[in-house]
Amino acid sequence: MLLEKLNWRYATKKFDSSKSVPADKVARIVEAARLAPTSSGLQPFEVIVISNHALREKIQPIAFNQAQVVDASHLLVFAAWDNYTADRINAAFDLVNAERGFVSEGGENYRQMLLNGYVPRDAQVNFEHAARQAYIGFGLAIAAAAFEGVDATPMEGFDAAALDELLGLKAKGLKSVTILPLGYRDAANDWLVNLKKVRRPLDKFVTEIA
Amino acid sequence: MLLEKLNWRYATKKFDSSKSVPADKVARIVEAARLAPTSSGLQPFEVIVISNHALREKIQPIAFNQAQVVDASHLLVFAAWDNYTADRINAAFDLVNAERGFVSEGGENYRQMLLNGYVPRDAQVNFEHAARQAYIGFGLAIAAAAFEGVDATPMEGFDAAALDELLGLKAKGLKSVTILPLGYRDAANDWLVNLKKVRRPLDKFVTEIA
Repeated sequence: MLLEKLNWRYATKKFDSSKSVPADKVARIVEAARLAPTSSGLQPFEVIVISNHALREKIQPIAFNQAQVVDASHLLVFAAWDNYTADRINAAFDLVNAERGFVSEGGENYRQMLLNGYVPRDAQVNFEHAARQAYIGFGLAIAAAAFEGVDATPMEGFDAAALDELLGLKAKGLKSVTILPLGYRDAANDWLVNLKKVRRPLDKFVTEIA
Repeated sequence: MLLEKLNWRYATKKFDSSKSVPADKVARIVEAARLAPTSSGLQPFEVIVISNHALREKIQPIAFNQAQVVDASHLLVFAAWDNYTADRINAAFDLVNAERGFVSEGGENYRQMLLNGYVPRDAQVNFEHAARQAYIGFGLAIAAAAFEGVDATPMEGFDAAALDELLGLKAKGLKSVTILPLGYRDAANDWLVNLKKVRRPLDKFVTEIA
């Protein structure tokens, strides 16, 4: 079922700009990213959902003029934490304690280990770690879009610093890492839609040690 | 359907070591990673599937003695390319041309852009980029496991350099980034299985700009 959906999806090159993804579908796509597992459960990223057309017109030149940004109906921006801070780590652990209704010694020891390990660490190292977690959510959002019959284009081709500036992400301690236009394919005008999906053969992808 | 599966899964803390995941299920989990979208379609990672128990016993101390490594029946190691090289980039583009049966000017221009941009770039920058792509596959493998009713534990807690040494990954130009034990939960002895899944509330995860 999942494999069928992954085979259905492709990096849409041309969206039908007359069609819009219903809000409930967008919500379930975002929910998949929210449910994504992340290292120590910190969820070190956020998602910005942009349907506003004027704003997407401003983003298009930042994204090498790729038309998907405006032809799709929604643009998801995945933005990772720029650093791990004590406040962010404590908020995550406090939330777990509040939601589960108890404090455990093991959990508190683990919190201290992360505070001691992450907070003094170089911000760039922490950002790279957070960015990887964002990619788990990104992958699950892409899968979720396929389950909704929604087309999507995973995109790294944009000027992250310019997008952060436009969206005010720096003030929020966030850095954009990927964007994902959501919409419906314009099959008649999409050069990629009918081309074979190509992946490295299994024997060059997997090694089994039995 | 996907959301249901993502809610079902959890980071399994205790596996039932008497149970083994059937080969066809492991194959479909790996296939989800193989089908993962990656930047420019380069698929800059490989997966090592370890069922060998003696090898997993050697890995356990490298993974902070976490029991899942041996109690599960399979261990997937996600290993990213240590660098982008001309050979790797050319192999990916050559494969696309061979599979689709034609060479396009656009594709060849894109190949040159990547060769010019990636090959001279610092190896660490390239590795970090490749690692992010591996996390997309990692996320989809986790989702695929849930669809198969297979339990899994996403793990970053291991000494990557030591694991690379043990598995001979350096000689292959690979660096391990995550591991994923696959098996079946020992619900009676897993402290996490019945605890509430906690995620940051939607208003602290998503921003909508309409």
